[in-house]
Amino acid sequence: MARYDIYVTYREGIFDPAGATASRALGQMGYDSVKSVQIGKFIQLEADAELAEVTEMCEKLLANPVIEDYRIVPVEEA
Amino acid sequence: MARYDIYVTYREGIFDPAGATASRALGQMGYDSVKSVQIGKFIQLEADAELAEVTEMCEKLLANPVIEDYRIVPVEEA
Repeated sequence: MARYDIYVTYREGIFDPAGATASRALGQMGYDSVKSVQIGKFIQLEADAELAEVTEMCEKLLANPVIEDYRIVPVEEA
Repeated sequence: MARYDIYVTYREGIFDPAGATASRALGQMGYDSVKSVQIGKFIQLEADAELAEVTEMCEKLLANPVIEDYRIVPVEEA
C-alpha cells in the first residue's frame, strides 16, 4: 500500500477567498504582523497506485487544474 | 518576514466528509486501488511573527482544536 501527500494550492493570480478572509480576520484580532495567508488543501491518499495514476486522480477529481496547482509527494513507509 | 507552512488535519476518530466523498467518488470512477483519502488544509502564512504567535493564531482561528490537529513548519528562507 503506497501513501501520498498531495498539496493543492491556488494558481498564481487566482483569488483565494478563504485565505483573504483569514488574513483580514487575523488583522482584526490584533495580529498586525500577518502579511498574507493562503489556504490550500492537504490531501493524504492511501492506495495501491503508482504516481502516474495518482496524477490522473488529481487531474480528474482531487484538484481543479484550471485554478489549482498540485504537488504529489510519495511518503516513505516507516 | 517569516514563512510558515501549516498542516491542519482532522483528529483521530473525527469524520472527514470531504475525504470520504472523494474516496467514494474515486472508487466509482474505477480507481479501485484507493484505500483512503483524507482532506485537510495546507496553509501558507507569511508574517513577522515567532512560532509561539503562529501557534496562537492556529488555536484561535486557523484550526479548530476541538476537531483538528495542526502542525506548523517554519519555512527556511531561500
